[in-house]
Amino acid sequence: MNQKRIRDYGITVGRLETGRRNKITDVPGVRVGHVTIKNQENHTGVTVILPGQDNAFVKKYTAASYVHNGFGKSCGLIQIDELGTLETPIALTNTLNVGLVWDALTEYVLEQCREDGAAARSINPVVGECNDSQINRIGKRAVSGEQVLEAIRQAGTDFEEGDVGAGAGTICYGLKGGIGSASRVLEIDGKRYAIGILVQSNFGATADFVLNGIPAGEKILQMIKDSRKTGKGVHKDLAKDAGKKALEGLAGNAGQIGQSDLDQGSIMTILATDLPVSDRQLKRIIRRTAVGIARTGAYTGHGSGEVMIGFTTANRVLAEPKEKLLSQTVIHESLINLAFQAAAEAAHEAILNSMVCAERTAGLDGRIYCSLAEFLPQLFIQ
Amino acid sequence: MNQKRIRDYGITVGRLETGRRNKITDVPGVRVGHVTIKNQENHTGVTVILPGQDNAFVKKYTAASYVHNGFGKSCGLIQIDELGTLETPIALTNTLNVGLVWDALTEYVLEQCREDGAAARSINPVVGECNDSQINRIGKRAVSGEQVLEAIRQAGTDFEEGDVGAGAGTICYGLKGGIGSASRVLEIDGKRYAIGILVQSNFGATADFVLNGIPAGEKILQMIKDSRKTGKGVHKDLAKDAGKKALEGLAGNAGQIGQSDLDQGSIMTILATDLPVSDRQLKRIIRRTAVGIARTGAYTGHGSGEVMIGFTTANRVLAEPKEKLLSQTVIHESLINLAFQAAAEAAHEAILNSMVCAERTAGLDGRIYCSLAEFLPQLFIQ
Amino acid sequence: MNQKRIRDYGITVGRLETGRRNKITDVPGVRVGHVTIKNQENHTGVTVILPGQDNAFVKKYTAASYVHNGFGKSCGLIQIDELGTLETPIALTNTLNVGLVWDALTEYVLEQCREDGAAARSINPVVGECNDSQINRIGKRAVSGEQVLEAIRQAGTDFEEGDVGAGAGTICYGLKGGIGSASRVLEIDGKRYAIGILVQSNFGATADFVLNGIPAGEKILQMIKDSRKTGKGVHKDLAKDAGKKALEGLAGNAGQIGQSDLDQGSIMTILATDLPVSDRQLKRIIRRTAVGIARTGAYTGHGSGEVMIGFTTANRVLAEPKEKLLSQTVIHESLINLAFQAAAEAAHEAILNSMVCAERTAGLDGRIYCSLAEFLPQLFIQ
Amino acid sequence: MNQKRIRDYGITVGRLETGRRNKITDVPGVRVGHVTIKNQENHTGVTVILPGQDNAFVKKYTAASYVHNGFGKSCGLIQIDELGTLETPIALTNTLNVGLVWDALTEYVLEQCREDGAAARSINPVVGECNDSQINRIGKRAVSGEQVLEAIRQAGTDFEEGDVGAGAGTICYGLKGGIGSASRVLEIDGKRYAIGILVQSNFGATADFVLNGIPAGEKILQMIKDSRKTGKGVHKDLAKDAGKKALEGLAGNAGQIGQSDLDQGSIMTILATDLPVSDRQLKRIIRRTAVGIARTGAYTGHGSGEVMIGFTTANRVLAEPKEKLLSQTVIHESLINLAFQAAAEAAHEAILNSMVCAERTAGLDGRIYCSLAEFLPQLFIQ
Repeated sequence: MNQKRIRDYGITVGRLETGRRNKITDVPGVRVGHVTIKNQENHTGVTVILPGQDNAFVKKYTAASYVHNGFGKSCGLIQIDELGTLETPIALTNTLNVGLVWDALTEYVLEQCREDGAAARSINPVVGECNDSQINRIGKRAVSGEQVLEAIRQAGTDFEEGDVGAGAGTICYGLKGGIGSASRVLEIDGKRYAIGILVQSNFGATADFVLNGIPAGEKILQMIKDSRKTGKGVHKDLAKDAGKKALEGLAGNAGQIGQSDLDQGSIMTILATDLPVSDRQLKRIIRRTAVGIARTGAYTGHGSGEVMIGFTTANRVLAEPKEKLLSQTVIHESLINLAFQAAAEAAHEAILNSMVCAERTAGLDGRIYCSLAEFLPQLFIQ
Repeated sequence: MNQKRIRDYGITVGRLETGRRNKITDVPGVRVGHVTIKNQENHTGVTVILPGQDNAFVKKYTAASYVHNGFGKSCGLIQIDELGTLETPIALTNTLNVGLVWDALTEYVLEQCREDGAAARSINPVVGECNDSQINRIGKRAVSGEQVLEAIRQAGTDFEEGDVGAGAGTICYGLKGGIGSASRVLEIDGKRYAIGILVQSNFGATADFVLNGIPAGEKILQMIKDSRKTGKGVHKDLAKDAGKKALEGLAGNAGQIGQSDLDQGSIMTILATDLPVSDRQLKRIIRRTAVGIARTGAYTGHGSGEVMIGFTTANRVLAEPKEKLLSQTVIHESLINLAFQAAAEAAHEAILNSMVCAERTAGLDGRIYCSLAEFLPQLFIQ
Repeated sequence: MNQKRIRDYGITVGRLETGRRNKITDVPGVRVGHVTIKNQENHTGVTVILPGQDNAFVKKYTAASYVHNGFGKSCGLIQIDELGTLETPIALTNTLNVGLVWDALTEYVLEQCREDGAAARSINPVVGECNDSQINRIGKRAVSGEQVLEAIRQAGTDFEEGDVGAGAGTICYGLKGGIGSASRVLEIDGKRYAIGILVQSNFGATADFVLNGIPAGEKILQMIKDSRKTGKGVHKDLAKDAGKKALEGLAGNAGQIGQSDLDQGSIMTILATDLPVSDRQLKRIIRRTAVGIARTGAYTGHGSGEVMIGFTTANRVLAEPKEKLLSQTVIHESLINLAFQAAAEAAHEAILNSMVCAERTAGLDGRIYCSLAEFLPQLFIQ
Repeated sequence: MNQKRIRDYGITVGRLETGRRNKITDVPGVRVGHVTIKNQENHTGVTVILPGQDNAFVKKYTAASYVHNGFGKSCGLIQIDELGTLETPIALTNTLNVGLVWDALTEYVLEQCREDGAAARSINPVVGECNDSQINRIGKRAVSGEQVLEAIRQAGTDFEEGDVGAGAGTICYGLKGGIGSASRVLEIDGKRYAIGILVQSNFGATADFVLNGIPAGEKILQMIKDSRKTGKGVHKDLAKDAGKKALEGLAGNAGQIGQSDLDQGSIMTILATDLPVSDRQLKRIIRRTAVGIARTGAYTGHGSGEVMIGFTTANRVLAEPKEKLLSQTVIHESLINLAFQAAAEAAHEAILNSMVCAERTAGLDGRIYCSLAEFLPQLFIQ
């Protein structure tokens, strides 16, 4: 994947060291797969996060979820909260495809368990979603079960960001959003652990967008206005008819407040780590990804369903244990700040990656959603 | 529906007055529909609760959810919690069919909104489930979307209880469980309000079953043992081979403690009312249905996912309101005990109705799950 | 302590084995102390539960809290929820004395830490309460800090139940309530663990009281009515003037529904164990004490603040650890039903003990609150 | 109060219009009072927020609480959550004084009710706290009940910010923190409503501090280093011995990560409004104050207990109502974004006001905590 990411533009987010790939797959065992659907009507897809190579149902992951704004349809959270475990891959898709994706994850686990000779009668698929209906004819529910299984099959440690998979049709700060990822590395007692984040970004009003402290959203709005007026500048290609549409794309979001048709935002945040933590500690850690989101400027709007799901590859729990008493390792709470900071920084950077990796895309009504990448050079000159 | 219910056996539950039907449909506008699947492999189905005649998405219901034990896969709860509203019918089914039922509810609302000329791009289907895998080949996911739509079409104010719809394959206290309902009537300022309950019962160990204070579960276990020994008594037809299986059916659940294959219980509790309450008050009210469950003897086992969902037909909220400020009516908190008591009593009675209306059913492995009705005469003689 | 407890009347609660003392102090290290204030105006006190001999602040206990009905003033719960630890003794008192008891617990920990050479600048005292204002002139806030320290000093493994300490002025089902305790023993891999409960009972309407399935409350109301009429029977001493008052005592509670002056109930439930569990597991376990409460008949009334706090003496956490990674032992979740059942049974029995050990007490307005013990012989004859 | 606030330095926070005073007291009826204790050992106090002129116990306020990080000792939250009401003033103080302040609030309400002839036997005082033990000899518990009553007596619509009252000893981003306030005005249907915030700021590592997008914390650290080296610049008075101490003051916080002695931060956020909202809506609104906090740079550290409490002066609830059914007015949810943005902006600005209004203060160990005001001119030149 040779996509240009936020650091490739010279922008550094936070202070902690990144992992080798600076992706969620820096956590050993974690893989990500996409299937993207792009045609006349649909611009959507599915993204799966596989916590490891083996059967998660047979050997569950310690996990936690956190609902920052519950205006969303994510499934599987109540069992994560009750039992502190994850037993399936996590799948992301569009709002109205949660059911079919849920069904396909179930099929996948049933098949996996058949192969492994394990009984599976009660399965808790975890599905997250964003509403991509500005760009995707969402009522079609274009993602079928087959695509979920395909995304699982092709999952790997490297993966594309931007308008792929479940991010194909999302919008972030009035620009094109999508899938983004980042990671941080912590060292405890000489051992290195990774905290990785994957986001599906689909939130925010343009005017609120902040890029490492710079009021980038306001500047972008001004740049487009100027281009339209002068027919010059970075967006001179948008200066005429297309330009009007682009501006509408932004204005639609910029004027977000009080407009009920903007209830459709959301950001899904998935955190993976190999840090030995308990489910309670994980819950505390994933809450800090909300800080990373806030650092990009948004205030978690009414319609911006914000759901966080985290798991650790440490402290796995066998469905059918040999021992009645399990031994687990957790960090002392006084060390948790490191993980908090990592979670906030990686979430922040993952959002920016989701935006710079995405490409300019037209909405169903002709509005144009630009890529953040188009504005970056200008943003730092002015 | 001429089913014999618990009161028809002379057993009165609680002290409050029941509604006319003593069902959830005593709440004006509420309807219930079932589609039942019974064949060689499958014994399952879907039950829908429609809160009213019109489009719930356009005119939402004030609602609340409560998770008593989150070992379950119910969908739609986080948005109910965040926004305090219900915008689709509620559907109940088996554990592994949640996805397809979710998808069908979405289709139903999309179609409804097309007809009503309303925009619907973000829909929150509410689906509950119990695990019926003792009786139903659950891996088949036998409930398709068509059956959800059919259940909605045929919904009415009268409806069957017992092993119908989503209750076709459930087990309760080692006996046959299913769908049950009951209601209570409150009077405030001379006006009468109903609180109705519908349960999908699928929980409990036989030995724990209590029937209005009587240790009925222990007595039933003894009765079957006696029948097997003597070849006489109420279950002489079970005295030989079938009898062994029946005993196993009960013993399997009676010995629930520590047996991991019993992680599959659950009870879904739906509460409807026309009492003017806020979402916070509704949440308090539906929590009291857990008391009704406890009165039947169970202690909410690890695997017994217990999820409560409630709505009121008062205080509806337009998706696209004409006014920015809404006027709502709520009871003063000092009156809420009446609703608490009603919720506890109706949940208690609904469980008993689900059991007495169900018929003896064989499990996939030949075990026989008797009806509570078979034991009732004997229980009160001894 | 030679108090006659519920089992001494031949009444067995539940099926599991009790601990040696059948008290919370069957958990090794746990001690309980009371200071009782009884004078013309005040009938109140403080009860402390010490989790162990050493400094809890220096070596914290894994803990959890659960709010079943939050109409109460318990302090310290949010930190228990966040960090999963308990760092002070738990103190119970009356509603308006929480502040002074909180202050005294702080003083106690500061002093303890001075002695141990430990820094303590942020202390989270845990205080629970019930409203004893029917019997106690509560506005006086009669419990001072000195009494908290005295209760700690005199704490031991044996302790009185009934109307002592924080239970001196409480009412339960219109009878005299108070402090009660019970325990259960579990065996895992040949090792025995205890689950102990201590309650401060102060809830319920007389008519709702159920004693092991018998509608004892209704029977008691009838017995008193009969005594008043005939001048004979178990309460002939109450037959005349005092009898009227006794009946009012009961009727006041029996008619609880809708009476705002009965917003003052509550039950505090403290669970101790030496079972190796996580804070999440503990939370699940203490929730099941609500089942024990329900088994005594109440439906958790509006005013009945029900708060549960639990801790385990396994998995302690050093404030200043030598190691950054901690090793913890937890039971596999499939074993947790044993603990659920134990929690429900012990809570149930603890409530009954609180009632039979209490003695007849007059309220501030002359109403008489009888002891359950007075009615027991009669209850089982009829 | 002629304190110089953040806007007086030309720094505008957010986009919405402020209220007339730009303080929480822009909400009609709300008053704030402080008592400050400053002596050799103690640098602490109490701040009270009175929701209105009349007796809050008799006529309760619709309210909500939200725990962003529960490492704190705030009292009264569980009842706010259960009942959705506030019935006392809110008091803020230091961590170890919560008990005595709780007791004094109780005394205040008892006295108020005596005067009003109202029965008050169950009172839920709401007390928040921050740990000021770097500057205040906290073990003394210097705040007595008398000071709470005095703060209530002298409460008014204008009030000081900075190191006064409960903010006398707090530290924010390694600089002097304290009490700060701000407000925003919304217009709905031509009517204006205020959202006011008051914070007690005591959190954050210096290096993380962001001032309207500028990495102010890093710059401040550099400025002090430069001053020490050159003996010139803004802090030349700190260039020698005192300078070292100042740097330690900052460094102590800058190096916050992993240092257990920094578990003592916290920020209390109180939101008042006259907007007609439900308790659920209020909860959603106060959660957005966390965004305001994040905008100042911190990631909500382990020890930074973050608790939000909000109330509205609309929709008050009589303890003893004349009517059984209450009529309430709430905004349609689609308007709530305005309130979200106002809450985020006002919380952000309140924190900055708490810092610029505070004065340089020495810690118990001689470290010097500078005021943000000392650095402001320099920060914007560079």
